[in-house]
Amino acid sequence: MAKAKKASRPSRKKLVYFFGDGKADGKGGLRNLLGGKGANLGEMASIGLPVPAGFTITTEVCTYYYAHGEKYPRELRKQVESNVKKIEKVMGGEFGNPDNPLLLSVRSGARVSMPGMMETVLNLGLNDQIAEGLIAKSGNERFVWDAYRRFIQTYGDVVMGVAAEGKEHDPFEVAIDRIKEKRGVVLDTELTTEDLKKLTADFKAIVKRRAGRAFPEDPMEQLWGGISAVFGSWNGARAIIYRNINGIPHEWGTAVNVQSMVYGNMGNDCATGVAFTRNPSTGERKFYGEYLINAQGEDVVAGVRTPEPVAKMSRQLPGAYRTLTKIYKTLEKHYRDMQDIEFTVQEGRLWMLQTRTGKRTAAAALKIATDMVKERLITKNEAISRVEPGQLDQLLHPTFDPRAQKKVLTSGLPASPGAATGRVRFSAEDAEAHAENGEKVILVRLETSPEDIGGMNAAQGILTARGGMTSHAAVVARGMGKCCVAGCGELSIDYRKEVFTVGNATIKAGDWISLDGSTGEVMLGQVPTQEPKLSGNFETLMKWADDVRKLDVRTNADTPHDSEVARKFGAEGIGLCRTEHMFFEGDRIRWVREMILANDEAGRRRALGKLLPIQRGDFEGIFRAMKGLPVTIRLLDPPLHEFLPHEKDAQAEMAKQMKVTPRVIRDKVESLNEFNPMLGHRGCRLGITYPEIYEMQVRAIFEAAANVRKKRVDALPEVMIPLVGTIREFTDLREMTDRVAKEVMKEKKTTFKYLVGTMIEIPRAALVADEIAESAEFFSFGTNDLTQMTFGYSRDDAGAFLGEYVDKGILAKDPFQSLDQAGVGQLVEVGTQRGRKSRKALKVGICGEHGGDPDSVHFCHNVGMDYVSCSPYRVPIARLAAAQAALA
Amino acid sequence: MAKAKKASRPSRKKLVYFFGDGKADGKGGLRNLLGGKGANLGEMASIGLPVPAGFTITTEVCTYYYAHGEKYPRELRKQVESNVKKIEKVMGGEFGNPDNPLLLSVRSGARVSMPGMMETVLNLGLNDQIAEGLIAKSGNERFVWDAYRRFIQTYGDVVMGVAAEGKEHDPFEVAIDRIKEKRGVVLDTELTTEDLKKLTADFKAIVKRRAGRAFPEDPMEQLWGGISAVFGSWNGARAIIYRNINGIPHEWGTAVNVQSMVYGNMGNDCATGVAFTRNPSTGERKFYGEYLINAQGEDVVAGVRTPEPVAKMSRQLPGAYRTLTKIYKTLEKHYRDMQDIEFTVQEGRLWMLQTRTGKRTAAAALKIATDMVKERLITKNEAISRVEPGQLDQLLHPTFDPRAQKKVLTSGLPASPGAATGRVRFSAEDAEAHAENGEKVILVRLETSPEDIGGMNAAQGILTARGGMTSHAAVVARGMGKCCVAGCGELSIDYRKEVFTVGNATIKAGDWISLDGSTGEVMLGQVPTQEPKLSGNFETLMKWADDVRKLDVRTNADTPHDSEVARKFGAEGIGLCRTEHMFFEGDRIRWVREMILANDEAGRRRALGKLLPIQRGDFEGIFRAMKGLPVTIRLLDPPLHEFLPHEKDAQAEMAKQMKVTPRVIRDKVESLNEFNPMLGHRGCRLGITYPEIYEMQVRAIFEAAANVRKKRVDALPEVMIPLVGTIREFTDLREMTDRVAKEVMKEKKTTFKYLVGTMIEIPRAALVADEIAESAEFFSFGTNDLTQMTFGYSRDDAGAFLGEYVDKGILAKDPFQSLDQAGVGQLVEVGTQRGRKSRKALKVGICGEHGGDPDSVHFCHNVGMDYVSCSPYRVPIARLAAAQAALA
Repeated sequence: MAKAKKASRPSRKKLVYFFGDGKADGKGGLRNLLGGKGANLGEMASIGLPVPAGFTITTEVCTYYYAHGEKYPRELRKQVESNVKKIEKVMGGEFGNPDNPLLLSVRSGARVSMPGMMETVLNLGLNDQIAEGLIAKSGNERFVWDAYRRFIQTYGDVVMGVAAEGKEHDPFEVAIDRIKEKRGVVLDTELTTEDLKKLTADFKAIVKRRAGRAFPEDPMEQLWGGISAVFGSWNGARAIIYRNINGIPHEWGTAVNVQSMVYGNMGNDCATGVAFTRNPSTGERKFYGEYLINAQGEDVVAGVRTPEPVAKMSRQLPGAYRTLTKIYKTLEKHYRDMQDIEFTVQEGRLWMLQTRTGKRTAAAALKIATDMVKERLITKNEAISRVEPGQLDQLLHPTFDPRAQKKVLTSGLPASPGAATGRVRFSAEDAEAHAENGEKVILVRLETSPEDIGGMNAAQGILTARGGMTSHAAVVARGMGKCCVAGCGELSIDYRKEVFTVGNATIKAGDWISLDGSTGEVMLGQVPTQEPKLSGNFETLMKWADDVRKLDVRTNADTPHDSEVARKFGAEGIGLCRTEHMFFEGDRIRWVREMILANDEAGRRRALGKLLPIQRGDFEGIFRAMKGLPVTIRLLDPPLHEFLPHEKDAQAEMAKQMKVTPRVIRDKVESLNEFNPMLGHRGCRLGITYPEIYEMQVRAIFEAAANVRKKRVDALPEVMIPLVGTIREFTDLREMTDRVAKEVMKEKKTTFKYLVGTMIEIPRAALVADEIAESAEFFSFGTNDLTQMTFGYSRDDAGAFLGEYVDKGILAKDPFQSLDQAGVGQLVEVGTQRGRKSRKALKVGICGEHGGDPDSVHFCHNVGMDYVSCSPYRVPIARLAAAQAALA
Repeated sequence: MAKAKKASRPSRKKLVYFFGDGKADGKGGLRNLLGGKGANLGEMASIGLPVPAGFTITTEVCTYYYAHGEKYPRELRKQVESNVKKIEKVMGGEFGNPDNPLLLSVRSGARVSMPGMMETVLNLGLNDQIAEGLIAKSGNERFVWDAYRRFIQTYGDVVMGVAAEGKEHDPFEVAIDRIKEKRGVVLDTELTTEDLKKLTADFKAIVKRRAGRAFPEDPMEQLWGGISAVFGSWNGARAIIYRNINGIPHEWGTAVNVQSMVYGNMGNDCATGVAFTRNPSTGERKFYGEYLINAQGEDVVAGVRTPEPVAKMSRQLPGAYRTLTKIYKTLEKHYRDMQDIEFTVQEGRLWMLQTRTGKRTAAAALKIATDMVKERLITKNEAISRVEPGQLDQLLHPTFDPRAQKKVLTSGLPASPGAATGRVRFSAEDAEAHAENGEKVILVRLETSPEDIGGMNAAQGILTARGGMTSHAAVVARGMGKCCVAGCGELSIDYRKEVFTVGNATIKAGDWISLDGSTGEVMLGQVPTQEPKLSGNFETLMKWADDVRKLDVRTNADTPHDSEVARKFGAEGIGLCRTEHMFFEGDRIRWVREMILANDEAGRRRALGKLLPIQRGDFEGIFRAMKGLPVTIRLLDPPLHEFLPHEKDAQAEMAKQMKVTPRVIRDKVESLNEFNPMLGHRGCRLGITYPEIYEMQVRAIFEAAANVRKKRVDALPEVMIPLVGTIREFTDLREMTDRVAKEVMKEKKTTFKYLVGTMIEIPRAALVADEIAESAEFFSFGTNDLTQMTFGYSRDDAGAFLGEYVDKGILAKDPFQSLDQAGVGQLVEVGTQRGRKSRKALKVGICGEHGGDPDSVHFCHNVGMDYVSCSPYRVPIARLAAAQAALA
């Protein structure tokens, strides 16, 4: 469990902030203290928008609560009570007074939104007596009993822990189903007032039986129960997982918002809705949203009823719609960003329940950012900061090839763009389990709920049968940048049999399907994909980003094709060209194996002679593709046993080809076998013990450079020696490299520039970087291996505990995904500083996978690197992250 | 090849230092410049001892020579020529003058002795004409032709590269054998003057044929050839290997000593000898040495003729012996240490050729050091510094059990003490190859030569058929602290058949023999050994050492027996008690396996419950053995798969015992299999994912502590959590430890002190040591793993390249033997400093194998650690090294 540091007691401190009636104690700037929701409610109130009065209990109270064995500061009770009084005054009701009842909601509100992760209790303040009073006041008996039974169900669940293990076993749901069956109806709305009254009584009995104590009748007791439940949910298992996935610190804590209830479900002049000030999927400048007449807020989000587009409100509730239109424009101007709002219409009157910066797809983010610059609402630099670099991934990955044959099964709402192909799985657990085995998975659900987060994260895409564009599945998928098709009504899912049917077609668990998140199409089988096309907005924003960033962005590419893709994405060179991949292709592996099998240097040289022209050809292709941009080529890195077959049959085949007995192969494999290959005979250790291998590679590089230069392509080879840990490894191999360069220049009667440098991936190399930089012209931090060795984690094995480490908060993030700045980062910083001390002009970059992770790019900028290098598809992400780092 | 940094040209510098006739340019203090031999020759000359005149070319010339493409500084020629003139003046001959010839020797002389590693040329200055002149002058024709033919042979070999590939193919030896056969004689001494004259002519012809040019007749040309050969031999392969093994920097270079020849082989009033001022084997204060009448110096060292004990000289050459006695006493007083001297008697007159501090066995070192304190020759602190800590190893290792049945085969000279058992191998290569496979080897040779160094190093002991106490084998073995029996004349060795015979017994390669280096006995088979008995000198010196050292010395011990041994050797606590070894013993492995096989925590707890009382018993035993000294216990470290059988048969047996199918075992083994177990699921990672395992261990520790305390044994448990890389790993497990401690104290109604700390063995832990020390009470640097991860070397796999790395000088030393101060040392230093910054009283120690390596102990002292911990037998070594560090 996450635990905050001992927080000092906020004595005599303001713990509660009021808002309502055009005034507020707090403002938007107090987000850390009041949470996003609370700060924005205050902000809306203070700019005169119609917000139901309420108050926010600060995040400091949450921190205090966990630091003091789940106790509150003493002053809190008084401050809460006096603020309840203020609400009563503004809203004109009285909490706990049957004659003029006031009901309250209790909601969480952390610094950043954690949709669906924490608890909410509505309709607080009801008991039998007050219900009667409310009926008298509202004249709407059915509404009151409906609210009352909902309240008991939620309160029983959330506060009193009447645990529901799956819907079919939820005692409240069982009671509802029983009464519906008895009455012969299908929908809740078909139940009569009497039915609801009966249900209310049944629910109370359930609570008493399951919780062992009666449902509390005292409204104030109810309120404190609700507040504690919200604080408690901050450290619920789901919330912790969500924070771990999203990198949200556990010590932030949540605020609690207590607010006067307003009702969208008191009749047909009531409604509730959510909307975005611009289209969150495309970015189009058009008010976009959904609402439901006569409904509570959860009904829209939960996706149980399919809501109406917000534009329709202009006919159904014209007055409220006019107000809403005015408000959304005010909000966008005020916040200078696209807003995601929640509202309720009670008896024709519009109430604003929430505004926040709206989540959006990458395409929408680009369009909104560039549009707002055109609208002079924001600056170019602000626009750069408005797009989350990681999100660009959505735009950069392949889409379905439109020329491909598609068997369209059905279609749903295009809830989150992208193209996904995978095997059908029907539960989050199954999805996670299969994804862990490397399977591509599509998660298929009736609708998703917060419990499914893990499975959604593991899946390629999500398909739901119910829910709209703002349903849980849609919102979460867009946040994750995952393809989602929602509300696909034709789907009939049978969880038990693990099949779904569409018309006559039956799709089983494990079958392949493809989802198009931009069209909503669901297709049978695996549909081929094609390169993404990028919009003008993308080019515009990238151009702005390039203008401000200080870091160069290179790519990791081993083939001319990858090199070209990366250049199109803006790569300014190759930061890592791995030569070993080339060793596996075609029949080259034969010569590699012959080389390994040779008993002496002469034999190895013979085999290497066969490889030389092939490697030279590889490098020529890459130099041509990069057209004069620098190309960093890493010499052979993996241990030799990786090139030999380990299966008996493959060994026999190799023996036949090599004209030796299988025993010879087996013996060789055994003699090369290593206990810890990661820490074994590889990298420059091979270069030192078998100098002829590196010599061949270096010769191939320089001959290729000489050859393409004759064809007027300016090649800039940078020879990178891997796994250096001591200065002498480097100087010995640099000597060899310089000698071969001289030989090749003489043979080819030309000269060319080249650099010789090293990968810093051994902790020791970072520590003695000053020595190494005396001879090395560049450093490229190989943070994959550096992370493995600095943590002592084998990437191939750490799966056994790394997940648990992140879940338990032992590690804030997987250090292979985002650079561990506190530990590995020290070595990167020390290595850079010491290297530059010896050689001022030392070129420093990073070529681990962190080079495409925005946080890590920030770090590299701060350390003062010259460049980052990442996979081709992450080049634009790195460009944008580098620009944001420069602006930070 | 080792290469020095570009040395500045020593222009107008003194490059040559003269000595002779009671005067000298240089003194003993100039050892770095003049080498050991040159400095001491100068020193002897300056205190008036009879040294043949000569001069020393400085080590700076050597450095210059290698930095400038093997060229000399311009001034050298002139300085050499003028110093030759000086020799002529003092010795009364003329170099190159046939009428009054003077002959010279050229010898190497580095800062430290490298016996047999570099070249020597004697009798320089001979040609046909000068030989005739010398005959005329000396009146000894046979002697002159003998010297002449020896000179041509050596010069041909050493300077002109007439390579000898094994004695049987050496063209010079072939010519000698041919003439002996023709003359029907066996010994060289039986050849006539005419034979030697004929040989001289044959040798010249051989030189011309093999070298492609005539033997140089010009004495000055001969001299320069000799000088260059000596400088050249500094970077010969043998010399480089020797320096690597002995940790001598390659950049030191050698000096060259050119000296007037004196002859021990001009007749029966001539002799040559080597001696020690005290017995180098026992330390006894008695002049000790050997000489040969009518012989050259090499004859004694080479062990071809067996020499006479030096005492006999008083009868054979009484005048020279009297002078020698006076001189050796003068020398010992002058140098205040035991001296190793070389002398020659020419026509009754004694000449001193060398003096140096004598190598000695550990026993001798102890006796000489303590005796000299008693004699008031040196102080106690000097005495401490006179014993090399690593040498103590010789005294601390077991000797043969005197009650054991021994089949004594024969005996030879007790050349180097110790007890060795191994399989017979007849060549250095074989010895090395088998030792690499983990075999214990005894190297058996007629006599050893510098080519055998590698094999001698790899062997447990050395047995030779020829040579005396100062033969190559004896000197080198003593230096290495290896058991050696030399000059075992009964041995008849057949290299080709790979057997030796003694009487009727035939011993083949691979047979087991045992050597007693203290008695000279050679025994059949493996003789059992017993604990060493330590002399009073040892106790005395150790007491002096304990008085000055600052570091505590603990031991690594896992059993009560080891703990007791270590306490006897002076251990002040246990620095590392590994708990996993206990898991393998007896039938405990069964419960360990049941625990691993369990599918859930409950199952694991059941199995652990069986282990608890057994572990508790282990700890009780250790606490009792340590009698109140602190005991650091490391919780389980290795990955779980190490406890499962990997062979099919063993798996089947385990399945039977566990009552499951073999498939279950196989699946478990496979599921736990790791690519890089070193970096896998082990150490505290197990403690986090299976808290119940550590909980059981911690409970066993505390229950044991409580139990022994009831029996009035003060237990001081220090719980050590291994493999910590992040603060949360430590704090989570420390919380658990504290909770269990509290529980046990309550249950046992007692209280006890304990510490909780961690091993710093992950590079990241050293980097975030400040965080960790906020919660940890002690750090123990696990430098084995820290070295593995900081270098990226798997100890199990690095053998494939580490040998070559040390041979090539890429690494000065094997970093697993001696702590890499430049790299790993930085992390140790940073970890210590940052840890102490957070917690001033942090206890810091080391428990890697480096804790018993003298250089590493020095480092730990300098870093300011509280203690070092090492294996029981190395405890005295660490005590002495710690004292020397404190005195440094």
